[in-house]
Amino acid sequence: MNQIFVIGIGPGGVDQLTVQATRALASVDVFFVLDKGDATADLVAVRSEMIRLYAGRHRVVDIPEVPRDRQPADYAAAVLTWHDARAAVYETALAQLAPGEVGAFLVWGDPALYDSTLRILDRLPVEITVIPGVTSVAALTAAHRIVLHRIGESVHITTGRRLLAEWGPELNDVVVMLDSHLTCLQIAESGLDIYWGAYLGTADEALLSGSLAEVGAELAILRAELKQRKGWIMDTYLIRRR
Amino acid sequence: MNQIFVIGIGPGGVDQLTVQATRALASVDVFFVLDKGDATADLVAVRSEMIRLYAGRHRVVDIPEVPRDRQPADYAAAVLTWHDARAAVYETALAQLAPGEVGAFLVWGDPALYDSTLRILDRLPVEITVIPGVTSVAALTAAHRIVLHRIGESVHITTGRRLLAEWGPELNDVVVMLDSHLTCLQIAESGLDIYWGAYLGTADEALLSGSLAEVGAELAILRAELKQRKGWIMDTYLIRRR
Repeated sequence: MNQIFVIGIGPGGVDQLTVQATRALASVDVFFVLDKGDATADLVAVRSEMIRLYAGRHRVVDIPEVPRDRQPADYAAAVLTWHDARAAVYETALAQLAPGEVGAFLVWGDPALYDSTLRILDRLPVEITVIPGVTSVAALTAAHRIVLHRIGESVHITTGRRLLAEWGPELNDVVVMLDSHLTCLQIAESGLDIYWGAYLGTADEALLSGSLAEVGAELAILRAELKQRKGWIMDTYLIRRR
Repeated sequence: MNQIFVIGIGPGGVDQLTVQATRALASVDVFFVLDKGDATADLVAVRSEMIRLYAGRHRVVDIPEVPRDRQPADYAAAVLTWHDARAAVYETALAQLAPGEVGAFLVWGDPALYDSTLRILDRLPVEITVIPGVTSVAALTAAHRIVLHRIGESVHITTGRRLLAEWGPELNDVVVMLDSHLTCLQIAESGLDIYWGAYLGTADEALLSGSLAEVGAELAILRAELKQRKGWIMDTYLIRRR
């Protein structure tokens, strides 16, 4: 079985790589790169820069993106179907590894948080090594210079899709990821603060914080403007009950 | 105001530093090091190695640890009292910075997750820059090669102290930190898996996973043995409903 590195590269570009990640990059024979289209050309450029700086002699194998149902009736089932289709495409790509060669996937942030690379590779006959990375959550709190939770309390990490169903009095600090609709604006409760960030750790980093009731409308406009200007946006936020 | 770097150094030693962290280390004039006693001599050694490898010309200022009430009636109030006392000690130490000098605190994992450095520095007249780090949660999931949550679902991060009160049917994936009693063994529910790790990312890394009912007793023995052998233990785990 070939060894495959799944390398968390952080959210913020070359400087958020760990020493361990740069060493792993140096040992890779084949980088597998998902082609997600023009909108993410910036992201491909960052990964190319990491490879240029730290990799040795290597090949790059592009993996075509598999179309996905974005409005499915059954979300989890649709994702599983999508993973099946991607596993087949990944398997074809992995066949380009010669015996003994090391492959790698570079994953934004950390491979354990809202990324499917591990779920797909788990279905294939490869030996996986995971290199942990800085999460966008850590980049968000660092940029705002805050602690993620109150003293000794808990924190909940969820998705935009689940926020309204999960929000409740037992949660004081909730991180929301994968939210293209700023779902937090629909929470009918006063006394909430938001700490929001986009393009975290990069030169384009944008931050906004304050009372959700006061800055919510401004945030919606800012997010739409940024998305239009760059063609894509990656953002995350913390909602904190005061 | 002096600039102070609060640098997340990851849980696993020198190789888990980010490039950004190594650059920050190089610009520091004074490292402030908390003396937590002999039990953590290993940890002090790792930080010294980071400084040796990446820092330039610098001084080290030790900050004595302030005793803490470990069994308080009111946990949050006791921690606040402790933070007050520590802020006074930090302020004395920070006075050793000359005008324009840059200070730094090295924090295990990431400064936003169960660390009080930011809460204490927030009370003092310094300009804080936070460098995000790899969390022990990311190191745990990397070691077990797992994703932290189910497809599109949420994850809850809590402490040993709160686990039993917070555990419930609405949570499927719960990370537990700061748990010196393996509180998960008191959850009266079948069908749970545990993914546990100690000294994550280091040469001493210890891992155990499986059905909580089946491996719980073994884990309690292993954890006690490891703690006795090294004199201290830092561990974390994920509980997953099957």
